[in-house]
Amino acid sequence: MSFERLVRFVDVQGVTGYGNLKSEPKSNLIGAEVEVLEGDLEKGFHATGRTTQIQKLLCPLPNVPLIICIGLNYQQHATEANLRVPPYPVVFTKPADALAGPLDPVSIHPDAQSMLDYEGELTVVIGEDVKNVSEADALRYVLGYTVGNDVSARNFQLPDTSGGQFCYAKSFDGFAPIGPCIVSPRLVPDPQHLRLTTRVNGALRQETETSDMIFSVSRIIAHLSRGTTLRRGTVIQTGTPSGVGLFMEPRGSGFLKDGDVVEVAIDGFGAIRNKMVFEQPSTVNE
Amino acid sequence: MSFERLVRFVDVQGVTGYGNLKSEPKSNLIGAEVEVLEGDLEKGFHATGRTTQIQKLLCPLPNVPLIICIGLNYQQHATEANLRVPPYPVVFTKPADALAGPLDPVSIHPDAQSMLDYEGELTVVIGEDVKNVSEADALRYVLGYTVGNDVSARNFQLPDTSGGQFCYAKSFDGFAPIGPCIVSPRLVPDPQHLRLTTRVNGALRQETETSDMIFSVSRIIAHLSRGTTLRRGTVIQTGTPSGVGLFMEPRGSGFLKDGDVVEVAIDGFGAIRNKMVFEQPSTVNE
Repeated sequence: MSFERLVRFVDVQGVTGYGNLKSEPKSNLIGAEVEVLEGDLEKGFHATGRTTQIQKLLCPLPNVPLIICIGLNYQQHATEANLRVPPYPVVFTKPADALAGPLDPVSIHPDAQSMLDYEGELTVVIGEDVKNVSEADALRYVLGYTVGNDVSARNFQLPDTSGGQFCYAKSFDGFAPIGPCIVSPRLVPDPQHLRLTTRVNGALRQETETSDMIFSVSRIIAHLSRGTTLRRGTVIQTGTPSGVGLFMEPRGSGFLKDGDVVEVAIDGFGAIRNKMVFEQPSTVNE
Repeated sequence: MSFERLVRFVDVQGVTGYGNLKSEPKSNLIGAEVEVLEGDLEKGFHATGRTTQIQKLLCPLPNVPLIICIGLNYQQHATEANLRVPPYPVVFTKPADALAGPLDPVSIHPDAQSMLDYEGELTVVIGEDVKNVSEADALRYVLGYTVGNDVSARNFQLPDTSGGQFCYAKSFDGFAPIGPCIVSPRLVPDPQHLRLTTRVNGALRQETETSDMIFSVSRIIAHLSRGTTLRRGTVIQTGTPSGVGLFMEPRGSGFLKDGDVVEVAIDGFGAIRNKMVFEQPSTVNE
């Protein structure tokens, strides 16, 4: 895969395509110059020698087989949630339609607004089908790393409403914004030494080093691939650090409100900035 | 969608295709005469006027967007598991690679063998993309009904190993056999009046009427589609009745062993029969 930082975008001519960023994205990339790439996840990406200008930044992948999420994977978050760390990664999923672009507004269904929360996460994209891979070999199957937000409607996640299962609360359309780019593993010598921050309307809520992770990226991939095929394009959100809205004091003060902008950033990767847009009951359509 | 009972198969000429069964499948369908259908889930299915003979019966769908499963959806099973019924369906998922055909052996990874279990389930296939559908309209989006087994590696499902999340224990390749056919809703006037049985090596383990379901098929679809797009082809396993291996006495006697054959049947739909084949550690490959 010949890219450094893979982006997908609509350019100033209205053409949708993939591109390669030569340097770290500092801004929101609108108007940025980008190398045009040919190909896709299946065929691989190849330089065309052409450049163009980004008009609208899209989710770096148009579709994926599945988004797999890890719960409770930072020591400090486990302490904050008062939860015992299990011997294996805690696994739940979001469907492909949960994907959203790095700057997309996220529409929030009326029933999912009362306890809306963010979870900033280091996000991994699988580059080749893989099954039964060892921890030692796992990182070979990584296409790249990106920034993600595991948006969560906590009112559907609490044990009383969910029967303890996390999937439903986290599977709404648009609840997995990722981006702005997929960073090649060649630029990420160690995924356990990254700094991640989450801000709500500019105020810092989460700040961590990925060295605080309980299960490393390689251990997660090895575990997920046990007897189970991970398809190319599978997105893995590796868990969130301490500082989610649910545990802010006074109780309830940390939840997201209509119009709030959540910014998740990883040093060197750039940031995703998604505005939460609460749907009015009358506008909900099939 | 013009079929009564949709099957997919390899015929005696070695051609893979879809077909329509005119009558209820009584046998394993090997050698059965079938009407050949053209098309697929996207384009719809159309009669060709030709017939052929089934040589190998396949999973009725070659690929699906996602398998969504409902936990704890029979009153008697909730009582057996000593679990309080939540106000909404309990939701977890399996990936598309969990699909298996109605007669396929299921390979069991060495780490998933110690507490292997079955869950016979009425299974629903979505026929059109749908979002925010009401309970009253939900069944309009059903392509058809089939028989499913929610195969479960309980050693990865217990709270101590899973952190309480069900997905991992149920997501291994082949852990969602379905079939033998997808029965048109025209032949199923009421999905809450079906009789389901599960047998292990011929011995009856589960027997229920779907009228014992806590959340009906229409309520499940309405709930799952809330703010969330259900894509055409999505498979929904609607929960298992009482009688799973986990709760058999003496404790542990109900789990599946190497070579056990699990047969799940719904009256009028036919049966799926899957042999559990325990992998040897030395044969596990990437």
